[in-house]
Amino acid sequence: MGAFRRTITIDTKGEGDVVDVTEMIESTVAGSGMRQGMALVFTPHSTAAVVTMENEPGLREDISRAMQRNFPSNIDYQHDKRWGDGNGRSHVRSTFLGSSVSLPFDEGRLTRGEWQQVALIELDVRERKRELIVQLLGE
Amino acid sequence: MGAFRRTITIDTKGEGDVVDVTEMIESTVAGSGMRQGMALVFTPHSTAAVVTMENEPGLREDISRAMQRNFPSNIDYQHDKRWGDGNGRSHVRSTFLGSSVSLPFDEGRLTRGEWQQVALIELDVRERKRELIVQLLGE
Amino acid sequence: MGAFRRTITIDTKGEGDVVDVTEMIESTVAGSGMRQGMALVFTPHSTAAVVTMENEPGLREDISRAMQRNFPSNIDYQHDKRWGDGNGRSHVRSTFLGSSVSLPFDEGRLTRGEWQQVALIELDVRERKRELIVQLLGE
Repeated sequence: MGAFRRTITIDTKGEGDVVDVTEMIESTVAGSGMRQGMALVFTPHSTAAVVTMENEPGLREDISRAMQRNFPSNIDYQHDKRWGDGNGRSHVRSTFLGSSVSLPFDEGRLTRGEWQQVALIELDVRERKRELIVQLLGE
Repeated sequence: MGAFRRTITIDTKGEGDVVDVTEMIESTVAGSGMRQGMALVFTPHSTAAVVTMENEPGLREDISRAMQRNFPSNIDYQHDKRWGDGNGRSHVRSTFLGSSVSLPFDEGRLTRGEWQQVALIELDVRERKRELIVQLLGE
Repeated sequence: MGAFRRTITIDTKGEGDVVDVTEMIESTVAGSGMRQGMALVFTPHSTAAVVTMENEPGLREDISRAMQRNFPSNIDYQHDKRWGDGNGRSHVRSTFLGSSVSLPFDEGRLTRGEWQQVALIELDVRERKRELIVQLLGE
């Protein structure tokens, strides 16, 4: 039983950028030498999210529209009134989507659906440098 | 310290079907021989979700209505325009609800509230065969 | 490799109360003697949530408004019709926000963003006594 950790840095292109990190997680599992356990995929930021999704252009647009519908950009945010950085919606969206996902692995391979990818979504209103941590636990 | 994994297959009845998997998780913990750790409950699909909820008929209806209100079926989805399978809303709902939950266990028993169950929710627009993985880590 | 668990009890002040538990998690990691692994932060209740967020007054208000906008208090809930406890919205919000978050730790320190805290949010319509479990796994 052991722990294995990998950190990468991602330069995002601004609000709504979807960065597919599936292969990076799969190669981390393969390189760890572990056979069975779980991968925690976490981003240490409050205006980004980590999700599972089918990563295709139509859904990237649909998820973006769902965020705008439910957490609109054109309403007042108290965060913006206090801090003036204009990313109140980014914070709220991050809290609802979450900053991590966890997936199991077995026989040295990540368990996921054929149409199920893992992605970091940039929610802030400008391009950012992001950290992503893959923490493996298993044996 | 060790890892223990169980996979089951679930035949769902179509959109909105709520399958309570609480007892299956509890029996997995009991059968593992482990005393303390965590259970990752994961589904490898992008049009289903795993959640914690009080599983009673009123709330099953309330959650269904909340999905329809916030991620409606009667709007355009770009996914549907590209792929024509009519389940764009299912994907978006899955990304927001999430494909896994994690619960701790102690003294060989799952930790959960009396009114807190774990459920797989079918979000696709038709009946499906689903996999559910319970990955235990602990000692 | 090992497991370490801590449980605390929190008296909340009623609907919308945000209880920052970041320091409690950090001290649990520090006191465990573990170097690398993950912390599962879980609440065994179906009308509360555990989230990551920037904990400042503006965002506490913005998140509260987002819940009211998407899961309103002034609509009918079937749960309330059946059980009469008036907290149907609390249950629905809990299922969408989630009852746990997971964060990695390394070199004996929790990994998180400078503006990223962990909070228990009271979603029920009255003050409650809540349990919060921090389950560590690692080495």
